[in-house]
Amino acid sequence: MRLLPFLVAGLLCCTLEPAVSQQRDYAIRPLPLTAVHLSDGFWAPIIARDHTRTLPHALSECAKEGRMTNFDIAANRTKGKFCGIYPFDDSDIYKAIEGASYSLMDQPDAALEKTMDSVIALVTAAQRPDGYLYTARETNAPNLVNWMGPERWVNERNGSHEFYDAGHLYEAAVAYYQATGKRSLLDAAIRNADLIASTFGPGKRAIASGHEEIEVGLVKLYGVTHDEKYLRLARFLVNQRGTISHPDANPDDPYSTGAYSQDDTPVVDQTTAEGHAVRAMYLYSAMTDLVAMQGDSAYLHALDLIWDNMVHTKYYITGGIGAIGNWEGFGRNYQLPDRTAYCETCAAIGCVLWNERMFRLTGDAKYVNVLEQTLYNGLISGISLDGMNFFYTNTLEVRKDFVHPDLERTRSPWFPCSCCPTNIIRLIPAIPGLIYAQGNGGIYVNLFAGSDATFSFPGNRTVKLIQQTGYPWTGRVTLILYPSASFSFPFFLRIPGWVGPHPVDGDLYHYTDSSTALPGLKVNGQAVPYEMVKGFAVIRRQWKKGDQVEWDLPMQIKRVLANEQVRDDRGKVALQRGPILYCAEWTDNGGRTSNIILPDAASLQTEFRPDLLGGVQVITGTVPALKASTDGLSLETASQPFTAIPYYAWANRGPGEMTVWLPRQVHDVEIIARNRP
Amino acid sequence: MRLLPFLVAGLLCCTLEPAVSQQRDYAIRPLPLTAVHLSDGFWAPIIARDHTRTLPHALSECAKEGRMTNFDIAANRTKGKFCGIYPFDDSDIYKAIEGASYSLMDQPDAALEKTMDSVIALVTAAQRPDGYLYTARETNAPNLVNWMGPERWVNERNGSHEFYDAGHLYEAAVAYYQATGKRSLLDAAIRNADLIASTFGPGKRAIASGHEEIEVGLVKLYGVTHDEKYLRLARFLVNQRGTISHPDANPDDPYSTGAYSQDDTPVVDQTTAEGHAVRAMYLYSAMTDLVAMQGDSAYLHALDLIWDNMVHTKYYITGGIGAIGNWEGFGRNYQLPDRTAYCETCAAIGCVLWNERMFRLTGDAKYVNVLEQTLYNGLISGISLDGMNFFYTNTLEVRKDFVHPDLERTRSPWFPCSCCPTNIIRLIPAIPGLIYAQGNGGIYVNLFAGSDATFSFPGNRTVKLIQQTGYPWTGRVTLILYPSASFSFPFFLRIPGWVGPHPVDGDLYHYTDSSTALPGLKVNGQAVPYEMVKGFAVIRRQWKKGDQVEWDLPMQIKRVLANEQVRDDRGKVALQRGPILYCAEWTDNGGRTSNIILPDAASLQTEFRPDLLGGVQVITGTVPALKASTDGLSLETASQPFTAIPYYAWANRGPGEMTVWLPRQVHDVEIIARNRP
Repeated sequence: MRLLPFLVAGLLCCTLEPAVSQQRDYAIRPLPLTAVHLSDGFWAPIIARDHTRTLPHALSECAKEGRMTNFDIAANRTKGKFCGIYPFDDSDIYKAIEGASYSLMDQPDAALEKTMDSVIALVTAAQRPDGYLYTARETNAPNLVNWMGPERWVNERNGSHEFYDAGHLYEAAVAYYQATGKRSLLDAAIRNADLIASTFGPGKRAIASGHEEIEVGLVKLYGVTHDEKYLRLARFLVNQRGTISHPDANPDDPYSTGAYSQDDTPVVDQTTAEGHAVRAMYLYSAMTDLVAMQGDSAYLHALDLIWDNMVHTKYYITGGIGAIGNWEGFGRNYQLPDRTAYCETCAAIGCVLWNERMFRLTGDAKYVNVLEQTLYNGLISGISLDGMNFFYTNTLEVRKDFVHPDLERTRSPWFPCSCCPTNIIRLIPAIPGLIYAQGNGGIYVNLFAGSDATFSFPGNRTVKLIQQTGYPWTGRVTLILYPSASFSFPFFLRIPGWVGPHPVDGDLYHYTDSSTALPGLKVNGQAVPYEMVKGFAVIRRQWKKGDQVEWDLPMQIKRVLANEQVRDDRGKVALQRGPILYCAEWTDNGGRTSNIILPDAASLQTEFRPDLLGGVQVITGTVPALKASTDGLSLETASQPFTAIPYYAWANRGPGEMTVWLPRQVHDVEIIARNRP
Repeated sequence: MRLLPFLVAGLLCCTLEPAVSQQRDYAIRPLPLTAVHLSDGFWAPIIARDHTRTLPHALSECAKEGRMTNFDIAANRTKGKFCGIYPFDDSDIYKAIEGASYSLMDQPDAALEKTMDSVIALVTAAQRPDGYLYTARETNAPNLVNWMGPERWVNERNGSHEFYDAGHLYEAAVAYYQATGKRSLLDAAIRNADLIASTFGPGKRAIASGHEEIEVGLVKLYGVTHDEKYLRLARFLVNQRGTISHPDANPDDPYSTGAYSQDDTPVVDQTTAEGHAVRAMYLYSAMTDLVAMQGDSAYLHALDLIWDNMVHTKYYITGGIGAIGNWEGFGRNYQLPDRTAYCETCAAIGCVLWNERMFRLTGDAKYVNVLEQTLYNGLISGISLDGMNFFYTNTLEVRKDFVHPDLERTRSPWFPCSCCPTNIIRLIPAIPGLIYAQGNGGIYVNLFAGSDATFSFPGNRTVKLIQQTGYPWTGRVTLILYPSASFSFPFFLRIPGWVGPHPVDGDLYHYTDSSTALPGLKVNGQAVPYEMVKGFAVIRRQWKKGDQVEWDLPMQIKRVLANEQVRDDRGKVALQRGPILYCAEWTDNGGRTSNIILPDAASLQTEFRPDLLGGVQVITGTVPALKASTDGLSLETASQPFTAIPYYAWANRGPGEMTVWLPRQVHDVEIIARNRP
């Protein structure tokens, strides 16, 4: 169904880098972070908070935990043992550098740049003369979880994370180079990649990464060096997957089959989203890059099937993915338990990264719909409103008498395995780059956020665009265009998936109200019809300075139902308004939420509460709630006020119950004889 | 605390064999099945049903499934492929022979004996000239689950079950020899054991059985042959356990550590009941045998610790053991989930076999208390009242909206893995042998069941004993003694553990009523005081013909509470009366049981219902029950009649809810939005 967009001659666009050649690339390119400026009431404070609080906090925690000292030890500048217990701790530093780079693109900060220069000096000093860089083995650290011995490149498939670290090094190096023009880390990355490229590949040693990441890193390295050997190595590594046998494979255990790391089947034969969700997202991202850069209909066919499988059967309404804690990954189709939902924050980030690429490959808004659902809900739920506490897992339900050892009910300032906090600090400052895109001769407005942006067109023409909106709380979006001179181009406005009847593609979720109110569109005050192309409203006209586009998104409280095959959600309802998914939290609902019924007939209102949780739109009503009688020999039902808050904002007011999916009615109850602590 | 009873010169007593020498043996010997005759209202019909229905049914199913044909194929008398999917299918035939042997001891049956002779001819024809006998490998059956290749003795630890089959062969051979005097199967067993003894042992090959059973079989073979090499081999095999390393051991996964088959640690260092429960029971039984036969304080120390751990933390109130389905075995301390209780019928049988041995080793009634709790409840729950349907697992709770793939809610006439039905047919006809025992110069009355028995004493003296009782429904037990001539000996009457305050040893369970009403005792109409020794009431006197002992056991409805550490039972109560543990079943309680509250204040009555379930004492009362309102927006509480039935008799009237542990009050409820099918 989808045309292969790489058949269209594209512009080279490694993320954030302006077009420089006519090589094969994504059909659609993102806007560089330097070309967009956020003034949004929703995102600007989050990005500022990242800059002022989250990033410094993460750097301080990394230092405290010895993540930086490890480089000094590896460089023989300090004596000591490897600090920490994970061989992938280096990657936290690389991700911090990457996040800092995006912050610097948005907002120069000499002190931060100086700090980063010194961190980079630490890193590069630890590199061996031949380019090797992996402090766990350089410091010979047998106290590690998953310690795999001192020999280089050994046991990559069993947990060494050597290639994972390398991939994050490359992403950081490219970002810092793009932010500052400084080559020191980029040169280190190139030396490392050259060492790996000289060791592995056709006619050399074969390997598949244990935790995918190096592949996307290599593509980014190609983006700045234009050295095609990095693309060839990335493709070689991807194609090694699924080529080793698993004699003791048990289909229910992805560790035993290799499916844990998408290593059970050659990638072109993979048809479903399987295994560790973060690994999966990074692999699929790399495959998407390779389709864009080199073309590969077999990869694209696999990606289409996998995406459909994930979004249609393994995607939480919060946008979280990876239901099963045992392998931090995907369960069976429709296996989406709420109370034990794992939904690693990193997996939500990976989901955004992959869907952003799929959009740029295809120009299809359905990928941005998924990106938006994840971004506004199950991704930013991973960080507290104070910017310094994190969820590693993002549950959909907390009830006081249910405790699971692997699942969090409150956020933590840090984790021994700190992948999620450092992933957040590289994702948040990159959000402005997700709002717009450019391709097919025009401008794409993907997300709705107050901002201004400048687009370059051939012939030295530019278009400045100002977006004004109260999104996600209000639906009115005003876009004012200032072309350098009048000219004609298509203007693509995403019609959000959440307008219905399904919040995202497929019938995994649907609204009880099946009508779809398409957004209204005016240009210069006049209602205009619009063409719909791949989920975008397209206006093609001769644009002139000051043209004003008004996009009226219908913000209504929507009741969401899940597909009957999702066992945990049967007979239950969730609330969504615009892109925001709601939950009920204890503190607004008489101290409980697991006792609430949300009848279909209950009327619901909405209001903006500037005082609450940094300012949120709440949903309110009156609902029945169940309570045991004092003597414990009967049940009482009483009406009580009901308040739902945005899911992303839960767990900022102390521990207690939280529910996303509320029962529409009571079919039965299970008696709890006493509180289980 | 316990004296080592093997220091007392004992009488040789392999089960069912009269004393013949002064070798070291158990301090206490069982009464041969030929010396006891049951007339009991409770057990006699069950044993008769076994003879007339269960055994023929099992033989027919074994034949239908090809279990017998496999021997013919192995003997090259029939062409074909191994029938069935398990390498241990031979053992079902051996267990059927063993069960038939006990039936024949109780009641000669020429037709059954003829059938057994022909089955034995089948078996012996399949034996290789050197003694090897294991049809899975003889027929080269790679279609098996756990097929481990054609080479003999290979992969025993990984599932071949070669030694398991051998053990059941030896037990069957000894039993059939004792029942009929026929040596054909015994000779085959000896040839097989000699082959194994010549292959394995000090200076030869080392091995530990994958599924323990050969060890108890070897001890029985020693019992009839008096060849000590069988004892030596049994001890060698037991001591091989825990001697191999498990480099990838994960302490939460008993498969990875070897704990699944009690093979993680040398047995003398084992302190807790771990792994597969049936394997564990057979190992501990063998160790108990070896303590009795050879003495071993290190074994005994381990057994004491393991027994305490099992009975004090891993024992269901039903007498079931092995909480966890994943490995058919023990969970952590106090991990006794009701709804997913695995409680394999074979494990309950193993629990009886081990505790019977521990009693005979020590003379302590606490082992018989456990034996009784298991026997009357979680063991015979494994067979239907019609004698032809079985539970493999014995749950403690069925609720209609909870389904678990590994757990049964209804009985089946047979299973592909049919260990439980054939274990039942070797246990049921052996029950008369559990009632009495002889040792320490006197007679032990362990169980209360209408019967007569004849005890032999030195000097050609005998005592005939007649027991009359309505047990387990009534508590009055009358015992009339007929010594061949008046003489003095101690008469040991077990004081049942269930008189309280704990139904079995330890504080895992206790009654709400903490008072203990000791049974009253009269001799010839006169109340007499009694000495208490290891849980027995002992009367030492000059016994004369017709002396009548009346033992008045206080049958009261008892409310049982579990230790607070058993999470699933907190705030809940179970009902026991005498040895019988009760449950509520749907059909007596308005179609449901999961909605019932059993308040502490609810008064309970009991009555015998001859029409119900073959005649049972029920417990009745009036209780509150919860129900969702028609509109599903509130909960209603209504009083309704309550009936509890003996747990062993549930699931004989169609599928539906069943609950052992009822909530004493509602602390909270979990809302079920709609029926999960």
